[in-house]
Amino acid sequence: LCSSPSNRSRPLSCVAVCGGTHGNEMSGIYLAKHWLRDPMELQRSSFAVTPFLGNPRAIEKCVRYVGQDLNRTFTTEFLSSTEAEDEPYEVVLAREINQTYGPKGSAQAFDFMFDLHNTTASMGTCLIVDSEESLLPMHMCHYIQMHYTRSPCPIYLYKLPGEETYSINSVAKAGLALELGPQPQQVVRADLFSQMRDIIACALDFIELFNKGTVFPAFEIEAYKITGRMDYPCYPDGEISAMVHPKLQDKDFLPLNPRDPIFQTFSGEEILYEGNTTIYPAFINEAAYYEKKVAFVKMEKHMFSIPGLQRD
Amino acid sequence: LCSSPSNRSRPLSCVAVCGGTHGNEMSGIYLAKHWLRDPMELQRSSFAVTPFLGNPRAIEKCVRYVGQDLNRTFTTEFLSSTEAEDEPYEVVLAREINQTYGPKGSAQAFDFMFDLHNTTASMGTCLIVDSEESLLPMHMCHYIQMHYTRSPCPIYLYKLPGEETYSINSVAKAGLALELGPQPQQVVRADLFSQMRDIIACALDFIELFNKGTVFPAFEIEAYKITGRMDYPCYPDGEISAMVHPKLQDKDFLPLNPRDPIFQTFSGEEILYEGNTTIYPAFINEAAYYEKKVAFVKMEKHMFSIPGLQRD
Repeated sequence: LCSSPSNRSRPLSCVAVCGGTHGNEMSGIYLAKHWLRDPMELQRSSFAVTPFLGNPRAIEKCVRYVGQDLNRTFTTEFLSSTEAEDEPYEVVLAREINQTYGPKGSAQAFDFMFDLHNTTASMGTCLIVDSEESLLPMHMCHYIQMHYTRSPCPIYLYKLPGEETYSINSVAKAGLALELGPQPQQVVRADLFSQMRDIIACALDFIELFNKGTVFPAFEIEAYKITGRMDYPCYPDGEISAMVHPKLQDKDFLPLNPRDPIFQTFSGEEILYEGNTTIYPAFINEAAYYEKKVAFVKMEKHMFSIPGLQRD
Repeated sequence: LCSSPSNRSRPLSCVAVCGGTHGNEMSGIYLAKHWLRDPMELQRSSFAVTPFLGNPRAIEKCVRYVGQDLNRTFTTEFLSSTEAEDEPYEVVLAREINQTYGPKGSAQAFDFMFDLHNTTASMGTCLIVDSEESLLPMHMCHYIQMHYTRSPCPIYLYKLPGEETYSINSVAKAGLALELGPQPQQVVRADLFSQMRDIIACALDFIELFNKGTVFPAFEIEAYKITGRMDYPCYPDGEISAMVHPKLQDKDFLPLNPRDPIFQTFSGEEILYEGNTTIYPAFINEAAYYEKKVAFVKMEKHMFSIPGLQRD
């Protein structure tokens, strides 16, 4: 009946930072390449940080992936598959990454992995965590929001209920993905590059404080939780027949109400949102989601109570 | 010794509009596909308009090109080459397009070709003409600037002195390319889509007026003329070592003065512009130019006197 004032967790010793999980998202690729040339700025006294390039072959070709999306490949199905001649490059790669930084779910796995992404959507400096139940990442997000004040850092909780984790950082014991935009694929913008660099520096400072025994009290925090996806309208032949409506474009994380316009057909008609409740769209008009016909991700905004945290 | 008040030129009867010369520049691709489904809005009484898709295989894969840049392939060298087994797809395609809409330089060629492009640079609604000596396109640009007032339409003269024309619209007797941005590759934004559609409608109205005998008087006009290109700084291994400076990013067509910053290295140092005169950069941080290591195109701003024009 006597609960401790905060949850206790072991200090972190091995941290990885991945750029280029998608080979055409350039902020993280150029950052990881820079750190591989000059790792000094990643150094902290209480833990080691290892930068690496997620998908070298996709980076070389400057494409999202070669065979299949690497960041959907870290499931039991793929990680436990046996080698086969015709398997996609990313399945082989995922098993290798799992050997190096995991194995996923094991005691040997890295303590933490950052994964660096860009989007063509106007998502600003978005922090992606699997769910609000991930205590250390939620404390890290809170710390970033308090100390990185150049822009708001919305928190995006990506795991649908009952879904298995599938992202590259699920290989480590805990993780955080950064999703900075808008930035076109294949392009590096100096402003987003420095934002990403500063957020990683801030997150490493948090780990240092945690390792050194700082007590992080409980807090309340706002976060967006994914509830589903909105597909593009299509012609009978499968081609998309409408664009994201100009009034929705660039409005990531802002409320979308029932009967608000969401699409404009190529002939000029408006299509309205037919849901019954207000949602908060994200990944609006993301280039990489056309192949899945996804126009945006639907989210709800919630307040979460996060318990306190300190090291063991 | 008695010059006529304006140059006379034959009316136009065959006009083509090309989308998807680059397979990942979506405004023109979706416009051309829309017009192929429903060509009504292209109809005018005095001439015929044919929409077409420039590079179908690149559009299918949503990439700029498959083998080589189609929009650099309309030179004598490629158009007069004989079929070979290992030649790039775009060389075969260029000969086919030249047969359909040309032959380049011949009396049978189409009278006019529009070519629809997007850029990741902040070039707004840019009008690209080969040179100020192209009388009818310069009058068309002037007409667009007077009648399409939603945004400024800078004129970009792309041909370097002594250079052969190489673009897809050089197959027709005259041409105009639209270059709308910023828009990420693989993405269609409703605002740019409607701008492109409106500019084409305006340009077709101009042709209609010209064909029907409207006299277009002489005028003075400002235009930007290419003088060269600025490469990215590189490491000895050929990788770029710097980004476009945040103060230059998104500043297309604005003056860049000697000693203004142009690059920021990944380590954080500034690199300044070392030229002796003010220039006007364009295509700043264009995604497709990284493979050529081109950071921006250098331009000069000039006033040109354009003689009057009327139909024969």
